[in-house]
Amino acid sequence: MADERVEGARPARLYARGSEEFARVLSFSDGLFAIAMTLLVVSLSVPALRVAGDEGELLRALDDLESNFISFFISFAVIGRYWVAHHQMFSLLRGIDVRLLGLNLVYLAFVAFLPFPTALLGAYFENAIAVATYSVTVALVSGMEVVLFRHAQRAGLLRVTIGADALRWSMMLSLAPVVFFLASIPLAFVSTKLAVLVWILNAPFGAVMNRRRPADADAIGI
Amino acid sequence: MADERVEGARPARLYARGSEEFARVLSFSDGLFAIAMTLLVVSLSVPALRVAGDEGELLRALDDLESNFISFFISFAVIGRYWVAHHQMFSLLRGIDVRLLGLNLVYLAFVAFLPFPTALLGAYFENAIAVATYSVTVALVSGMEVVLFRHAQRAGLLRVTIGADALRWSMMLSLAPVVFFLASIPLAFVSTKLAVLVWILNAPFGAVMNRRRPADADAIGI
Amino acid sequence: MADERVEGARPARLYARGSEEFARVLSFSDGLFAIAMTLLVVSLSVPALRVAGDEGELLRALDDLESNFISFFISFAVIGRYWVAHHQMFSLLRGIDVRLLGLNLVYLAFVAFLPFPTALLGAYFENAIAVATYSVTVALVSGMEVVLFRHAQRAGLLRVTIGADALRWSMMLSLAPVVFFLASIPLAFVSTKLAVLVWILNAPFGAVMNRRRPADADAIGI
Amino acid sequence: MADERVEGARPARLYARGSEEFARVLSFSDGLFAIAMTLLVVSLSVPALRVAGDEGELLRALDDLESNFISFFISFAVIGRYWVAHHQMFSLLRGIDVRLLGLNLVYLAFVAFLPFPTALLGAYFENAIAVATYSVTVALVSGMEVVLFRHAQRAGLLRVTIGADALRWSMMLSLAPVVFFLASIPLAFVSTKLAVLVWILNAPFGAVMNRRRPADADAIGI
Repeated sequence: MADERVEGARPARLYARGSEEFARVLSFSDGLFAIAMTLLVVSLSVPALRVAGDEGELLRALDDLESNFISFFISFAVIGRYWVAHHQMFSLLRGIDVRLLGLNLVYLAFVAFLPFPTALLGAYFENAIAVATYSVTVALVSGMEVVLFRHAQRAGLLRVTIGADALRWSMMLSLAPVVFFLASIPLAFVSTKLAVLVWILNAPFGAVMNRRRPADADAIGI
Repeated sequence: MADERVEGARPARLYARGSEEFARVLSFSDGLFAIAMTLLVVSLSVPALRVAGDEGELLRALDDLESNFISFFISFAVIGRYWVAHHQMFSLLRGIDVRLLGLNLVYLAFVAFLPFPTALLGAYFENAIAVATYSVTVALVSGMEVVLFRHAQRAGLLRVTIGADALRWSMMLSLAPVVFFLASIPLAFVSTKLAVLVWILNAPFGAVMNRRRPADADAIGI
Repeated sequence: MADERVEGARPARLYARGSEEFARVLSFSDGLFAIAMTLLVVSLSVPALRVAGDEGELLRALDDLESNFISFFISFAVIGRYWVAHHQMFSLLRGIDVRLLGLNLVYLAFVAFLPFPTALLGAYFENAIAVATYSVTVALVSGMEVVLFRHAQRAGLLRVTIGADALRWSMMLSLAPVVFFLASIPLAFVSTKLAVLVWILNAPFGAVMNRRRPADADAIGI
Repeated sequence: MADERVEGARPARLYARGSEEFARVLSFSDGLFAIAMTLLVVSLSVPALRVAGDEGELLRALDDLESNFISFFISFAVIGRYWVAHHQMFSLLRGIDVRLLGLNLVYLAFVAFLPFPTALLGAYFENAIAVATYSVTVALVSGMEVVLFRHAQRAGLLRVTIGADALRWSMMLSLAPVVFFLASIPLAFVSTKLAVLVWILNAPFGAVMNRRRPADADAIGI
């Protein structure tokens, strides 16, 4: 579109690392991550007891909230992991262009949306539709992560040269959650616990991948 | 008023770019934008199911929330667009005076208010009053954007000289949402879908305007 | 107490302007202000309509929320005014000591509490107890503002020398809301509208005070 | 694990003090602290009155919320104290490694969770299970504080050399809340007021400890 042409013509529109504007994009993103993570707690509502002082009743009520607690900590870990990845990607940038600004907003929209599927999962852990809604949202965030990185690399916004091996390896690491979370959806209709098991498999896969980190990825510190 | 006189007499009251205080206004604004965007998700409440494990029931319940999802993403895009515009305007400033500080707070009050009309729109998408409430709020934010920019320009707070063409063009770009959103109100009483269509027309209008960007706007990077 | 002695002995415990730690106190305070202001919107809940598409019913329901809207904008203005004052006070500091850190937290606790009396006022505008709760909270915030400034001045944390006239004038400006808001409480039991009128009188009083700004206040830019 | 090896090999992966990335970790943590503290107010909901203008009824309703108000201010103080401690610990760091980033997220997860036990305590102050839930959460945050500091010290992330006395003293100060809050749990089943008394005892203990601050702790300003 028109913007493409304009970008070529006016490299001045790049917010360079070190400028007030570059810092603003980061602080805005950090704020949004922090709020999305903290808002997860809002879906944990205080149970209504018939007898306020009844310890057994409160214990049973908290036990019923078990899947809400699990959802809270899973989502905190998921958003936290995205925040670390965002952190690492932006530490490689020499600047931010208008398109990356827009893509970053789309990415953040899905991050800000995550408290809803989290609350859904907390309430209906056994329901395959709740699991599927959660999986699709996480897959969308991971997918956007890839889109952001590809744009940064193609538009020459990286301050390091990224080798073919490092690029392939880094793409695989970002695309893995997309594959794992989408693959969990049909399994959720068999058993929602099976689906969550597939999510968790993402972690050892990441660890194995980290051990196979190519030399050129190592050199630029990703 | 008294302030005007004082400002003339004490240019020291200007928070200059690069100072801790200039950065604080930006980080405060960014925080408010980020929170307003993330709070939009609070209006998405988990549906109550009769049978927790019933996939069909949850699917129908999510389908009923469709207009809530649409409202969430429309408002995220709307506030996101304002954040980008705020970002661009403040990147042109050489400093912030007391009056701009106050006007910025009025502007942010309407931004912080937006989650309410968004929730209203999500609940009553077919109701012309919900559409009108949303339109008036958006028009007020866009109107304040113009007021902020006019003050910055007249009080000599810009660090670039802005030509007559660039100024007219930039004003038109900011005033367009005011016109589109106010014009949609009478149409909402005919059909709320028609009103939303008028909102969406704002985007291609912006694209056309961008292609007609005057040379002097191009030069200063707005 | 023990701290006093320690402070005298270790000036190193001062977070100096320009350090990462000084900036952190400001960004933390700004975050809290921004969140408190944006959370005000949470008390505005979407009215339940019997017929979703009934424009007349929604219009009447919004009309019933009138005092909630007024409370939202009053509180946004009140917290915004405190944010500007916080901003101005901290721009005079050369550093922050442990005690100021603690006092700032007490001050922020009352700011963070404000959304509750605001919601109370929105729901029960005609109830003198709601008006009194709001008044006491605002008086406490303004009172803490004075305490913060006095400590900063006595502990030698200001980077300017403040004359006796400027100090008296500045104290009066900060104490005025304490007086106006506490004075409004007995009046609220006669008429809550009368009490709100007294709150509003605070603004022209501030304007008159601003015109009488002493020369030495002018010189240091407060 | 794999990371350990990698860290040894690539000291470049350290986000050094002064870099954009170091500042981002701090601003993200501050944002999360500020939001967790402000969200505490969300659990204070406006009481429903039968007669909106009935002052006596509202006064009694607010009186019923007494334990909610106490919980709000206790938790604000507790999270505020953690924020100050976080502030002091990070002011000693010369950089942040990937592991500290991860540990910091686990620590922040428990901080973000605190509004839930706070709301629980506000609703069921007399219920030992509510008191125990609160105590366990606070003990976990304090425990993580120790873990963070130990890692920073062992991985050589501190920019000061910390003597054996200062280390022991600092560990005791961080572990004290773990001991006090866990010890309060069995007492809560006798009397919840007794448990809260034990919490409060933590403050004078801290004051006594502060007076016994060893010389080498004093020297590095912790």
